[in-house]
Amino acid sequence: MKAYFKSQRKTKQFVLIGLLSVFTFNTSCKEQSDINAEDTVENFSLVDKNDINRVEPLNWWVDFKDSTLQLLVHHPKISERTTEISYQGVSIEKVHQADSPNYLFIDLNISENTKAGKFNITFKKEGKDDLIQTYELKSRIKPAKEYLGFDSSDAIFLITPDRFANGDESNDIVEGLNETKIDRTDGYARHGGDIRGIINKIDYIHDLGYTCIWSTPVLINDMHQGSYHGYAITDYNKVDPRFGTLEDYKELSSKLQEKGMSLIMDQVANHCGLEHWWMKDLPFKDWVNNQKNYEDNINNWTWDKNIGSNHRRTTNQDLYASKSDKNGNADGWFVSAMPDLNQRNPFMAKYIIQNSIWWIETIELGGIRQDTYPYPDKNFMADWAGAIMNEYPNFSIVGEEWSYNPLLVAYWQTGNNNKDGYESNLKSTMDFPMIKFIKEGLNEEESWDKGLIKMYEGLANDFNYANPNDIMIFMDNHDKSRVFTEFDENITKTKMAMSYMLCLPRTAQVYYGTEILMNDTEKPGDHGLIRTDFPGGWPDDKVNAFNGDGLTDEQKDMQSFMKKVLNYRKHSKAIHKGKTVHFVPQGGVYVLFRVFEDETVVHIINKNEKPIILDLDRFEEVGLKGKPVKNIVTDYQFLWGDNINLKEKGSIILTTKLN
Amino acid sequence: MKAYFKSQRKTKQFVLIGLLSVFTFNTSCKEQSDINAEDTVENFSLVDKNDINRVEPLNWWVDFKDSTLQLLVHHPKISERTTEISYQGVSIEKVHQADSPNYLFIDLNISENTKAGKFNITFKKEGKDDLIQTYELKSRIKPAKEYLGFDSSDAIFLITPDRFANGDESNDIVEGLNETKIDRTDGYARHGGDIRGIINKIDYIHDLGYTCIWSTPVLINDMHQGSYHGYAITDYNKVDPRFGTLEDYKELSSKLQEKGMSLIMDQVANHCGLEHWWMKDLPFKDWVNNQKNYEDNINNWTWDKNIGSNHRRTTNQDLYASKSDKNGNADGWFVSAMPDLNQRNPFMAKYIIQNSIWWIETIELGGIRQDTYPYPDKNFMADWAGAIMNEYPNFSIVGEEWSYNPLLVAYWQTGNNNKDGYESNLKSTMDFPMIKFIKEGLNEEESWDKGLIKMYEGLANDFNYANPNDIMIFMDNHDKSRVFTEFDENITKTKMAMSYMLCLPRTAQVYYGTEILMNDTEKPGDHGLIRTDFPGGWPDDKVNAFNGDGLTDEQKDMQSFMKKVLNYRKHSKAIHKGKTVHFVPQGGVYVLFRVFEDETVVHIINKNEKPIILDLDRFEEVGLKGKPVKNIVTDYQFLWGDNINLKEKGSIILTTKLN
Repeated sequence: MKAYFKSQRKTKQFVLIGLLSVFTFNTSCKEQSDINAEDTVENFSLVDKNDINRVEPLNWWVDFKDSTLQLLVHHPKISERTTEISYQGVSIEKVHQADSPNYLFIDLNISENTKAGKFNITFKKEGKDDLIQTYELKSRIKPAKEYLGFDSSDAIFLITPDRFANGDESNDIVEGLNETKIDRTDGYARHGGDIRGIINKIDYIHDLGYTCIWSTPVLINDMHQGSYHGYAITDYNKVDPRFGTLEDYKELSSKLQEKGMSLIMDQVANHCGLEHWWMKDLPFKDWVNNQKNYEDNINNWTWDKNIGSNHRRTTNQDLYASKSDKNGNADGWFVSAMPDLNQRNPFMAKYIIQNSIWWIETIELGGIRQDTYPYPDKNFMADWAGAIMNEYPNFSIVGEEWSYNPLLVAYWQTGNNNKDGYESNLKSTMDFPMIKFIKEGLNEEESWDKGLIKMYEGLANDFNYANPNDIMIFMDNHDKSRVFTEFDENITKTKMAMSYMLCLPRTAQVYYGTEILMNDTEKPGDHGLIRTDFPGGWPDDKVNAFNGDGLTDEQKDMQSFMKKVLNYRKHSKAIHKGKTVHFVPQGGVYVLFRVFEDETVVHIINKNEKPIILDLDRFEEVGLKGKPVKNIVTDYQFLWGDNINLKEKGSIILTTKLN
Repeated sequence: MKAYFKSQRKTKQFVLIGLLSVFTFNTSCKEQSDINAEDTVENFSLVDKNDINRVEPLNWWVDFKDSTLQLLVHHPKISERTTEISYQGVSIEKVHQADSPNYLFIDLNISENTKAGKFNITFKKEGKDDLIQTYELKSRIKPAKEYLGFDSSDAIFLITPDRFANGDESNDIVEGLNETKIDRTDGYARHGGDIRGIINKIDYIHDLGYTCIWSTPVLINDMHQGSYHGYAITDYNKVDPRFGTLEDYKELSSKLQEKGMSLIMDQVANHCGLEHWWMKDLPFKDWVNNQKNYEDNINNWTWDKNIGSNHRRTTNQDLYASKSDKNGNADGWFVSAMPDLNQRNPFMAKYIIQNSIWWIETIELGGIRQDTYPYPDKNFMADWAGAIMNEYPNFSIVGEEWSYNPLLVAYWQTGNNNKDGYESNLKSTMDFPMIKFIKEGLNEEESWDKGLIKMYEGLANDFNYANPNDIMIFMDNHDKSRVFTEFDENITKTKMAMSYMLCLPRTAQVYYGTEILMNDTEKPGDHGLIRTDFPGGWPDDKVNAFNGDGLTDEQKDMQSFMKKVLNYRKHSKAIHKGKTVHFVPQGGVYVLFRVFEDETVVHIINKNEKPIILDLDRFEEVGLKGKPVKNIVTDYQFLWGDNINLKEKGSIILTTKLN
């Protein structure tokens, strides 16, 4: 079929039909760039050639700061051939052979004034026909500095796309993939949620008051099981067809931007899925860590514990960690089905960096969430983040270090002046420590060193962070027991936790369904339960949280509460960038202020079950005396006087902004 | 009586008799410098004049880097007089009046080539006799750089002097002081221990393997109760006569130095005792914090909670702490009987700095332990430590921050590059966090995140410290429940904790009596019990831990264990300054190595009750394979081969140093 197209000249229309036909033949890598090709093909007389099995990245752009581009070429015996390119501004700097004869890595230089357009890459061998691959350099859609990342003015809605809304039932089952089962009764099977489902519900998310969506990965996981979660990627260039198409993903991003919102992509640099195409023909002997063990057992892969990660992430910082333990963390496989990528192989490193940039530019991302941050080679991670931030100075990346130790959270944040000299280039890290402090703070009986003082002193640790505002706070996510369960389904405590975290000097993240008290109480920590389907996301759902049908009064109340707090937060400069002042908790009451110009936000946590009078003298330095304030949830207004009557346990948010 | 001496010329002998007579008249401040005066009086024709009630510091020295000296002069209506000095190299820069008419603060400059000697300070008023005070500038005993502080080669024996040994029964009760009761059955009364007691037992302490003694304060606490603990100082220039004399204190230091050991003084800059002499006639309106409240109630002092410290020490670092909470910590009184000194008063600041230097120089100190470090004004503390380190570049100071948060421990250590710019000038801080990690590590059942991993990850936090070696590790002290009680009187665990902490890259501190399993089990945390009398320290004691009489077998075994470990540590460069390598605990076993040149020390903790085989392959990188090693406690030697049979729960220290 390829040969047929090669031998003919086609009209624009014809080319497109032809390319669409190629999809079934050449399964994974071509469709996306070729559909894009439509945008520029009019200015271009060249007929696209597609002799090569894979060339990645699928396309590139002109006008990057970094003028280098390394192409991965995968094709039978391609290493026997020489490579030629003729295009103004593009030069081949070096062609690298790999350990496998089926790969070439081609270093290109794209000089400063290179024009966007297509060119052919010709692979020659004496006595054989040339192999020709058309490659495109695109124009960039917008200036690099306009790729704005998330920050402390944002509230991020985290979605597990398989479990949020099924907007396109036609893609629930895609024949030819390794997992075709759909079973909403099985927490670990696919349920059918997809990108179209998210697009359809943008208004709901926007109305709640969120400004960003972070969806867990939507790239293809062509795995035999558990493919729904997305962290076992089998092609870094392809949207999982069960979630939709690249066009859907683009549409999600652009529709969000129309609403003044943005999209955060969840990327995985540490590991791929075992069914990744390159696992059948690895380019180098060290493309993945512990590769020999895998290759020796490739035909009957059984998990060898010796190649598993020890998951001891402190080895990244520990001055005394043994070499074997360091390797055990960084080079061990996360799980048996996820080969651990070797980012010390410079071709792998370049591949991952280029892939991230490809997605930012293709989807117009508003940020990246990078999975399992302390597991890959940490020097590579600094290079990776550095390369992205070099191209997109106003972008944001958040890295996942699941640790309750603020030292480690601080270590990974850019500007931390680490004593070992490590500079991560990473803008945002995750505030696991505050989750613990808030949980203990609200659950424990008050005493000298228990209860609210944990939250107060936990927040005091901010002196240790290079930029606390850029740290992402959350109460749960797709891997953690849900906040409502963590508080034993106590709505008051759940609201206290949520209102507190949403008032802090932080970037905020909330997991979908928190607003309707979703829980995993039946089996706390169970991933299937944590990632329960959002009611109303499927046509036959009896309860519909999008329009409120069937929700309990408590759920409606929580939904309304979250909507009020998030929508206030959305426009509150005091919360986004105000000065923070808090007072040592006393008598079961903890008061925190955020102040920016004439807006003061007061967050009060009261743990007393019985009514108490809160004397306001102690807060005199904040300067609220005699000023009118409003409860942002109830709209009740009063003058900030000598005291406040706190009638019941709970949190209150007051503001001086009355309208 | 003073007038009598003033009018005559005396021989050297006569002067000394006369001065000794003055003691009873002029109770507190003169004796010490005047006795010292004997050293230089031969070279000096001046007859000492002592018209003034108090001049402090009691004397000073030539050849300090800082050429300034500020004298506090206290005498009735002294502010009405002018001041004159005539001595080559000494000039009055400024004379400051205070709020009380009975004080003058005189700024002197002592120029570089000033000779040691005495001179008169003359206070003049028209129509009145001159008041004359002889003042001495001494020569320094040894070069400043020879004042060597403690470091990680040291093991410090902490003593509560009232409870260690009663070497001089004649000073048990000193009439004229506010507390004259001696009652060994009352944990909060004086028991009679003293400096002479410590001097008498230096050999015991030396034989145990310690290199330093830190005694809790021995300066006078002329308080009505609780005077034994020493932290309510009522004269910063006077040894408590119930502990001995200044000469005794000097003798302790010099006898220690003869043994190659050194003395650490416990100083208190945050507060004095309520019976401090200046509390009856405060020089300034802001000499102590919350002074007005005190003065308004001086005749019937009742504790007002509003002036008590909130003890919220994180306000020192917290970016968000309210002003009122900051003041509450720094300016509140520690307890009702301890006025909080206002170090922001520059005369108070200078007074405290000079007093510390006076003691270093007078006693030839080997270090200072500063009490309640996060309570005084933190900028003053940095100035204080900086002034001392400026004069004594090789000295050591350790500050007490009682926090289990390593961020705070790190904050106070010099070189931490704090994000708020604070530079403490403080060499050593206290490792409260490791106490918690070791306790949990040994007490908890092993699991993924409990047990030995707490010790391993706790030690991994060292990456956060500017200089981990300079941090002081300990398992308990005079304020904390004793280690044996903390481990429920489990000897094995107690040994595991002690051997581990003594092998770490740290300065080590052990509380007296740990070697004989002293405990406060009857009422954990009770200060009286924690500070139990050391058996054998009193003539009528039935048990004598110094010679072993009456000790149980367990006590003797612990004493021998500590002696072996401490004496090995004393000469072990691997422990003092070796490289540290430790391995993630597995199967209830945690192995840590210290390596320096050809000495390798191995510390193994085994929590398994039943015998196990420890495979040594995992530790290959340390390079011990085939080498002979010796157990430092049992002397048993063997070759480091493929595995070790660990027969029982406990810790083992092995070394490659066989002799």
